[in-house]
Amino acid sequence: MAKVTSFKTVDVRFPTSRGLDGSDAMNQDPDYSAAYLVFETDEPELSGHGLVFTIGRGNDLQCAAIDLLAGYVVGREVSELAKGMGDLARSLVRDSQMRWLGPEKGVTHMAAGAVLNAAWDLVSKSAGKPLWKYLSELSPAEIVDLVDFRYITDVITKEEALSLLTKAAANKTKNEAKLLAEGLPAYTTTPGWLGYTDEKMVRLAKQAVADGFTLIKLKCGVSLEDDKRRLRLAREAIGPDIRLAVDANQVWDVPNAIEWINSLGDINLHWVEEPTNPDDVVGHAAIAKAIAPVRVATGEHAANRIIFKQMIQAKSLSFLQIDATRVAGVNENIAMLLMAAKHGVPVCPHAGGVGLCEMVQHLAMFDFVAIAGENPDRVVEFVDHLHEHFVVPTKIQRARYMAPVEPGAGAEMFKQSVVDFTYPTGKEWIDV
Amino acid sequence: MAKVTSFKTVDVRFPTSRGLDGSDAMNQDPDYSAAYLVFETDEPELSGHGLVFTIGRGNDLQCAAIDLLAGYVVGREVSELAKGMGDLARSLVRDSQMRWLGPEKGVTHMAAGAVLNAAWDLVSKSAGKPLWKYLSELSPAEIVDLVDFRYITDVITKEEALSLLTKAAANKTKNEAKLLAEGLPAYTTTPGWLGYTDEKMVRLAKQAVADGFTLIKLKCGVSLEDDKRRLRLAREAIGPDIRLAVDANQVWDVPNAIEWINSLGDINLHWVEEPTNPDDVVGHAAIAKAIAPVRVATGEHAANRIIFKQMIQAKSLSFLQIDATRVAGVNENIAMLLMAAKHGVPVCPHAGGVGLCEMVQHLAMFDFVAIAGENPDRVVEFVDHLHEHFVVPTKIQRARYMAPVEPGAGAEMFKQSVVDFTYPTGKEWIDV
Repeated sequence: MAKVTSFKTVDVRFPTSRGLDGSDAMNQDPDYSAAYLVFETDEPELSGHGLVFTIGRGNDLQCAAIDLLAGYVVGREVSELAKGMGDLARSLVRDSQMRWLGPEKGVTHMAAGAVLNAAWDLVSKSAGKPLWKYLSELSPAEIVDLVDFRYITDVITKEEALSLLTKAAANKTKNEAKLLAEGLPAYTTTPGWLGYTDEKMVRLAKQAVADGFTLIKLKCGVSLEDDKRRLRLAREAIGPDIRLAVDANQVWDVPNAIEWINSLGDINLHWVEEPTNPDDVVGHAAIAKAIAPVRVATGEHAANRIIFKQMIQAKSLSFLQIDATRVAGVNENIAMLLMAAKHGVPVCPHAGGVGLCEMVQHLAMFDFVAIAGENPDRVVEFVDHLHEHFVVPTKIQRARYMAPVEPGAGAEMFKQSVVDFTYPTGKEWIDV
Repeated sequence: MAKVTSFKTVDVRFPTSRGLDGSDAMNQDPDYSAAYLVFETDEPELSGHGLVFTIGRGNDLQCAAIDLLAGYVVGREVSELAKGMGDLARSLVRDSQMRWLGPEKGVTHMAAGAVLNAAWDLVSKSAGKPLWKYLSELSPAEIVDLVDFRYITDVITKEEALSLLTKAAANKTKNEAKLLAEGLPAYTTTPGWLGYTDEKMVRLAKQAVADGFTLIKLKCGVSLEDDKRRLRLAREAIGPDIRLAVDANQVWDVPNAIEWINSLGDINLHWVEEPTNPDDVVGHAAIAKAIAPVRVATGEHAANRIIFKQMIQAKSLSFLQIDATRVAGVNENIAMLLMAAKHGVPVCPHAGGVGLCEMVQHLAMFDFVAIAGENPDRVVEFVDHLHEHFVVPTKIQRARYMAPVEPGAGAEMFKQSVVDFTYPTGKEWIDV
C-alpha cells in the first residue's frame, strides 16, 4: 500500500556542446539536458522517475512546468494510480486553466508527459515488471482506457481500437518469446552528426556496419555540396545493401526541401527525416508526393496526437517517429501506436538525447508484442550517448535492442549523475 | 537616444471566475490573467509594455518564460531596436536551445510575442505614434523585413508580399482618413457566455443591438438542446437582420462537430468558431465542407503562421482570427495579414481577455490602412471587460473601434491595477 509522498524536479544538463555531439542543421550547440522528476513514496525502495529531454536553455522552465502539474500525483496510493492511469492522463491534459497555455503543446504538454511517465515508472516498478511487459499484459479494454480519444475519432474510435487489440492479443505470447530471444532492430545516428569530419563519419559508419547495423542515418541540410559528398562517402563506406537515411531537422521550406532532396542524386535513400516544420502536415504531404519513391519520416517534434492523426490522414509520412518525452507520455504515445497500426504505418521511434533510448524502447516493444506485431520496417533509433548515467541502460546486441527485464519505465538516473550534472551548481558545471 | 535599462515581469490575475464572466464550453472557471512585461529605459517617461493573456494557473510559468527571453532587448538603444525589429523577431524565435521547447508554440512562443510586443510599444511611443499608424507609415520593403518567411514560402514569398504591399500603398492616405472618421466595425461576445441565464443573455443581446452591433456571438457546445433554445431566443431578440455566430471553443471532435452544427436548424448562422482542436487543419477543412453554407472561423489558439498557412491552403476557415498574444507578436501576425490578403480571406481578430482588444485593434487598423484595405467581412471582436485597467482603453462608438491616437501598442496598464491584482500578494487577492 505504497503512497506517493513528495516530488522534486532537478535541472540536469550535460555539456555536450563542448564536443559537437548532437550537432545538426537546426541545433548547432545543444547541451543535452533533462528536466528530471522524482516521485518519492513512503516505501524507501520505491520511487518513480520521469524526464523531459531538452537541449539546454529553458530546462529550468521545463522543470517549473512539471512543478505545476506534479501535484496531481502526490498523496495518491500507487495501487489506486495503477487503476486510474487513463483518468490521470486526461486530468493532466485537461486542467481547465493550464490548458490555455498549449493547448496540448510546448512545455506544459511535455510536463504532463513527465508526470505520467514518472507515474508509469512507479506503477510498473511496484508491479515488479518492465513497462513494456506491464503494458503488454493489460487487457484490450484496459489499454483503450489509457487513451484520450478526444479529437482523433475521425481516424480511430475506442471501439475500433478495442477490436484491433483483441485481434492482436492472439499473438502476444509468441511475440513476447521472440522479443526476449531476438530483441528489436536498432538503427544508428552516431556516425552522422554535422560537426564530425568526413574521416570521422566514414570511420564510424564502417564501425556501425561491423557492429551489425543495417540502417545508418546522417544529418544533412546545411550545404547541398557537403550533403552530396558525405552521402557518396557514406555509401562507399557501407556498400549498397545497408540502408542510408538523412535527417534535415526542419531546416527547409517546402519548395526547397523538394528541390534539395531531388538534387541529391541516386544514392538510394531509405527516408528523409523532418524535411520541414513539424506542424506542417500539408507541407510534409506535398514533399512526400514530390520526392517519391524516397519516403518521409517525421514525428519527434510533433506536438500531439492531433498532428500525428493528420499526418496519417494526409499521407505526410511513411515512417511515424514517436518520441518518449515530446507528447503527454506513455498514454498519448499509445494513441499514436493505435492509429499507426490501424493504417499500417510502421512506428520507428526517435531516440538519443538523454534517456530517450531507455524510455522509448518500452513503447516499441509494447507495440511489437501487443499492438502492431511484426513489421519489417520497424526500427528504433540508437545513439550511443549518455547511457552510463541510467540505472537500466539500453542493451544493444548485434544492433538490436534487447528487452530490459528490470522493473520500471527506463528514466531513472544514478543519483551521483544527477548531483554532478545539476545545473548550474553541480561539479561538472562548477569545474569548467 | 533612449536605452533599455531593465525589465520586469508581473503575474497579474483578475478573479473573473467568481462571476462566470468568460465561461464557455472548454473554459469553465477562467481567472483572466496577464503575464505582464515592462521594459524600462533611461528616460523616465519612456517604457515599453507587453503581455500574454492566460486564464489563471500557469501565469507564473508564462512570466518565467518571458524572463528567459527579455534579455534580448535589455541594453539596446531604442533607435537601434526600431531599425532591427525583424532581426529581433527572428533571433527570439530561433534561439537555438530555447527553440527545442516549442518549436514556435506554447509558453516559449508566447513569451517571444510579449517581448516583441513590448518592444513595439517602446518603438512606437518613442516615435510618438500609435502602433497602427507607425506600421502603416513603414515602406513595403520595411514591412516585409519584419516578417519571418521561413516555412511559409509555399503560400507567400517575400517578393509576393512586397508586390502586394506596393499595390496597397496607393490607398493608404484614403484608408487612413476613413479609419480616423469611421473606425472599424466591432462585434460583441458580451451577451453570450455560457454561465449567463437565458434572461441575462436576451437582455444583453437586445442591448447590443441598441448599441449598434450587427454581429453577436454566443458560446455553445455543452448541450445541443440548450444551444437550440438559446439561439432561438437570441434570434427572436435581435431580429432577422443582425448576424449571429456561435463559438464552440474546441469542444467537439470532427464527426460530432458536423452532426451538432447541422442539427441546430435554420437560424442563419454567420460562422461557427473553433469547432474542434486548433491544430486540426484537416479536421477544420472536413467540417467546413460538411457544414456549408455555414462558415468556419478560427485562429485564436492557432500556434503560429505555419498552422494559419495550412488553414488557408486546405480551406479550413473562411474568417481568420488572429490573436495579439498567442503567436510571436506583431511580427508574426503581419505574416498572417499578408497570407490572408493574398488569398482574399478576411481577418477578424479575436479579442477580449485582458488587453486583447487594446492590442489587436492596431493590427486590424494596420491591415485596413496598408494591407488588405476595405473588406466588408472584417469585424473585430469586442468584449466589455477590464478596459478600465488600461492607460489607453478601446474607444467604441456606435459599435465601431475608433482609432487610438495616443502613442504605443496598447498593452500598458495603470500601475495601481498592476499592483492591486498582482497574484497572490495584491490586495484584490489578499482581501478574499
